[in-house]
Order: sequence, then structure tokens, then C-alpha cells
Amino acid sequence: MRLQTTDYRPQTMKSVAEIGENALIRQLSRLVPGRADVVAGIGDDCAVVRVGGRYDLLLKSDPVIERVHFPPGTPGERIGRKAVGRVLSDLAAMGGEPLWILMDLVAPAKTAVRRIEALYRGAARLARRHGAAIVGGDTSRGPALELHVFAVGRVPRGKAVLRSGARVGDRVYVTGVLGGSLQGWHLRFPPRLAEGRWLREGGWVTAMMDVSDGLAADLPRLAAASGVGVEVEADAIPVSPAARCADHRPQTKDIRRKKGGESPAAGARSGLAHALGDGEDFELVFTVPACKSAAFEQAWRRKFRLRCSAIGWITGAKGRVRLREGDRISALDVAGYEHFRDRR
Amino acid sequence: MRLQTTDYRPQTMKSVAEIGENALIRQLSRLVPGRADVVAGIGDDCAVVRVGGRYDLLLKSDPVIERVHFPPGTPGERIGRKAVGRVLSDLAAMGGEPLWILMDLVAPAKTAVRRIEALYRGAARLARRHGAAIVGGDTSRGPALELHVFAVGRVPRGKAVLRSGARVGDRVYVTGVLGGSLQGWHLRFPPRLAEGRWLREGGWVTAMMDVSDGLAADLPRLAAASGVGVEVEADAIPVSPAARCADHRPQTKDIRRKKGGESPAAGARSGLAHALGDGEDFELVFTVPACKSAAFEQAWRRKFRLRCSAIGWITGAKGRVRLREGDRISALDVAGYEHFRDRR
Repeated sequence: MRLQTTDYRPQTMKSVAEIGENALIRQLSRLVPGRADVVAGIGDDCAVVRVGGRYDLLLKSDPVIERVHFPPGTPGERIGRKAVGRVLSDLAAMGGEPLWILMDLVAPAKTAVRRIEALYRGAARLARRHGAAIVGGDTSRGPALELHVFAVGRVPRGKAVLRSGARVGDRVYVTGVLGGSLQGWHLRFPPRLAEGRWLREGGWVTAMMDVSDGLAADLPRLAAASGVGVEVEADAIPVSPAARCADHRPQTKDIRRKKGGESPAAGARSGLAHALGDGEDFELVFTVPACKSAAFEQAWRRKFRLRCSAIGWITGAKGRVRLREGDRISALDVAGYEHFRDRR
Repeated sequence: MRLQTTDYRPQTMKSVAEIGENALIRQLSRLVPGRADVVAGIGDDCAVVRVGGRYDLLLKSDPVIERVHFPPGTPGERIGRKAVGRVLSDLAAMGGEPLWILMDLVAPAKTAVRRIEALYRGAARLARRHGAAIVGGDTSRGPALELHVFAVGRVPRGKAVLRSGARVGDRVYVTGVLGGSLQGWHLRFPPRLAEGRWLREGGWVTAMMDVSDGLAADLPRLAAASGVGVEVEADAIPVSPAARCADHRPQTKDIRRKKGGESPAAGARSGLAHALGDGEDFELVFTVPACKSAAFEQAWRRKFRLRCSAIGWITGAKGRVRLREGDRISALDVAGYEHFRDRR
């Protein structure tokens, strides 16, 4: 975040748009003390809590809001699917299994029951496919259509894959392809639960998260949590066909605006820029010790048809995420898409 | 719910305002199949799920939304307190203990960070007082200020107090006083966790719920869940001073409007009408076998200073809730405050 040098107001005097989501979460998490039964709290994909017995529980909540996470005309089933998919993707990023889901629905009073039903149907279908039961929730009127999904999952005790486990020398991988998600993928992505669980069970991964705000925003979070740096190879980023198509359209929202015009990737190579900055990919990004990487790649290819790309490695340059293009290296220290930031 | 006789459209063709919250929830819960690890799903104060070990888990989500659950000028701390208090009240109604809380915050981008912080502070303070840890959540921009709180609690395996356990002959009790909550109580009520837990541990109660929509709306739900009827003694209802004061002001929102003008309690005796219809009391209403009631009342008085009133008894008139005033009996079969209904 860049403050203007003349702005000396304390953070709390500003609006949430001025400080952005990352700073707001940092600010709020100070109000919340830790506790022995909380293995991981605010700041990872899910909270991990200890309940006794063979499993830890994973807790996650996430909203989808009209005009923020989907446009007004979106079919109800797609909205419900996305809402559940988002939290399942977070459970996947911990190597977990989903168990139970609650849904808070907010809707203007004039909303057709049919639309709400479609929304629930989409949610229930995806939940069922992944073994999760919808067990409750609330319905309330409000100014816009919203669905807040709360999921409980589980992972064997002490085995949750956190963002904080990456070590210098680890290889960095990402599943699938990235970029252009708003052209449709964000409403129909399959949460990578099978992949996340397999990665955990095989003992392959040291750290993992899902790509929700774009690699350029998410990799710095993984680096910060692990106290390491990341170097990414531009040519290795798996750019989606949708991101490449975006090249041919006016770049009204391309990554340059989010990055303050710094990126050598923006402009001519905007397919890559989309892949790094669009977000909503809901793929897994994770780290594997270098000594295991050959065996891992072989095992992955045997198990999954889904693409898995080695995109870089973990460095000792703490907190710094860099993009290498040939012999040129640039910083990838972007705020990415933050929910509250003004997007000038 | 009363349909106009000329309205033959199927439920799904209508708006959520036309069918109301109760019917909407019935409609949606058909889309959600049961499962062996779900002891109680949609329809009780909390969902009860089996996780293995000595405890069942309680899951609950509830929103507070600007202009629905609080007016725009409400201090942030009060909003946070109410949001957490609502879900804790539901855990109390199962005889449970709270463990962990997640909060989804929605706010317009221009909202001051200070306001959000106050909101979290109010939430965190009430959570801490009752032994609950805030472990995560999400922040997103949206059209209005909202807080969606998700709580996980626990109760010894098989011991959750459901709405469905009331038996013919049981006495019906309510804690505290009722009515006029919007004059302030709804922003500062203490969730009755100690009372709920004591009631469960003592083995006193057969059924319990919290009074969130008013006795006139909530008792029919308890009756329906238990497959019994309820008869309430008008003179025994503990009317709050705030509800009595409401007598002296114009009755623009009194219970007659919600009840379609049926209630003999409305009008002259609007203190009682407020007590039955206002809602947001967050007191506990519960049933005790008649043979235990004398011992229960004595034990309660020894343990708590909080008022506890015997207001009626469980009858065999399945699904019928009646109000007795002297020798006059009237139906109390109200929809009460439903979030989506048009309030003409």
C-alpha cells in the first residue's frame, strides 16, 4: 500500500477504501487474541481448530455479493455453485475434506422464490458432489442478493497444510491454467479437493493456498507467511486461453492499473498480465521440496490429467516476490485485487 | 400464512415477500437431504452434528443488516455485540457452550475504519466474555453494513436440547421479561448461556428455544416441532417496562398488523401485545415436566436472580397455540415477524 506522503491521518481515521482489505484485516486481527485450541487463525485459507480426537477442524466463511462477485443477471444455480465452490476451494488448500455447510441468504423482498431455489439447488449440488451436507443457515431481506457460506471441514490432527511451511529451495507449482476467469470460469470452477487431499496425504507439499486474488497478490501472502521469497519464471506461468483472448480486447482493467504501471509484463504481453492479476482462478499454488520434485511430477502425472506447472522456486529474499523474464527480473509486489481499494 | 383465494400461482412463481420466511425455509429445506452425522438440521436453533468423541457440535449462522436489524446511526460496538449475541443466544437455546466464531463483514467502501474496528471490538468483547474465540472471516464491499456471524459450539454427545422434546402436560417457562426490545434491549441483551447450560445439565428441560421473533411466532414453532399444542396464560406473560411504556405511544407497528387484527390482546392491552409480538427478546422459552416443576422453580431461584415465569402448559391439541385470558381463549397462530413478508 502506498500512502501519499502528505497523508498523516492514522489508519483508523480513513475509509476502508483508502486502506484496502489487506491492511484492514491486519488491523482487525490485532483485536483478536490467540488461544491454545486455535492452531491457525486469521490469515490462512481456513482457520484450524483442535476439537480432540483424530481430526482437526477447518472453519471457513466466504460471501458472494451481487455486483461484487457476480453481475445481476447471473443464473441462480451458478451463484450458488460459486458460493459453495469458493469455500470448498479454501478447504482444498488445507488438504482437507468438507463436512457441513451453513448458508446465510440475503435478498431483496421482491426476489422470486424460483431464483432463490435455483441458487440453493446449485449450492446443494456442488456440496453433495464433494460429500458436504447443508445443515442450516438463515434467510433475511437486504439491499442486494448475497450468499454467505460457512463450511466446516476436517483434516487429520496436525496435518493441515498451512501457507507458512515453504522453505528456501522448494519448487513452486500451480494447478490448471490462470487468467481470464471472469469470462466464465469463476462461475463453474471445480474446487481442487481431490488434488489438495492427495498432495497432503502423499506428504509432497510444504505450503499451499488457493489462487483467489491472482498469483501476483497471493504469492506475496505465501511468502510473508513462510518468511521467504519467491522467484517466478514468466515463461512457466500457465496462461489460460481466456487470458490470451483478452489480448484482443481493450485492456480496461489490466494489471497495470492494479500495479501502478510497474510491470514489464503488462502491455504487450497482457495474456501473462491477466494470468498474474485477474484472480478467481481457484487453482492450488503449492511448494514441494526440490529433492522430491522429480518423483512428485511423475506421481502427479500418473494420478491426474489436470495440468500442474513448476513456475518457480522459494528464495531467501524474505517477503520479496520476483518475476524473471529471460535475464530481466522485476518485482511482483502487488496489492492485486483488494475488495475495498479504490481502483483508479 | 393466508393466501388470497384467487392466487393460484405455485409458490416458486411468487416473490419471497409474498410467501414469507417460514414458507421459504420449508421450500428450501426440501432441497437438502438428511445424513447420518446430522443429528438436527434446518429448523432448530442450531444444527447439531456428530463429530466423534464426547461432544456433538452446534453450528449456527445469523446476520445483522443495516436497516433490517439495526438503524443506520447505531454505534459500531452495539452492532458487533448484537451480531455475536444473536448466535450465542441460539447456542444457549441448545444448552451448549460456544467455542469458535467466524465473521463475514460487508461494508460500503466509504465506511470509516474506525467504525469497523468498533464493530469488531463489540463482537470480540462479548465473544471473549463467553469463552468464544474469533478465528476468521472475510471482509467485502457491498451496498450496506452487514455482519454475518458463524458460531461453532459444543454439547455433550446426544444432549442437545431440541425444540422437539415437549410432551403433553409439561409446564412452559420463559426467562426475563418480554416486549419493547427495539427501545434498546436488542442491542445489549446478554445471551442466556449460563441459564441454558444449567437447564440442560440439571436435566430439567424437555424442549427449548430462544425468543427471537416473539412468543406469538416462536411458540407455534416449538409446538410444531414437538407435535403438541400450547396454552398460554395471558396474565402470566412477563411484560417488560419498555413494552408497557409503548402503550403511551402511537401503536404504528403493534401486533394487530402482524396478526390480521385477530388478537383480543391488541388494542387496550398493547403491553401484552408487544410482549407477544415484538420479538428480539433473546430470552429462553422451555418446557419442564409437570412432576418436576416445583423442584425446578426452587432450584432456579437458588441459582439465578433472573426472573423465570411459568406461562402455560403443553396440550394435546397438535400445532395449536392458544392464549387464555380469564375464561376467554383465542388462537395465537401468528406468522409474527417474518423477514420477507410485506407488512401492510
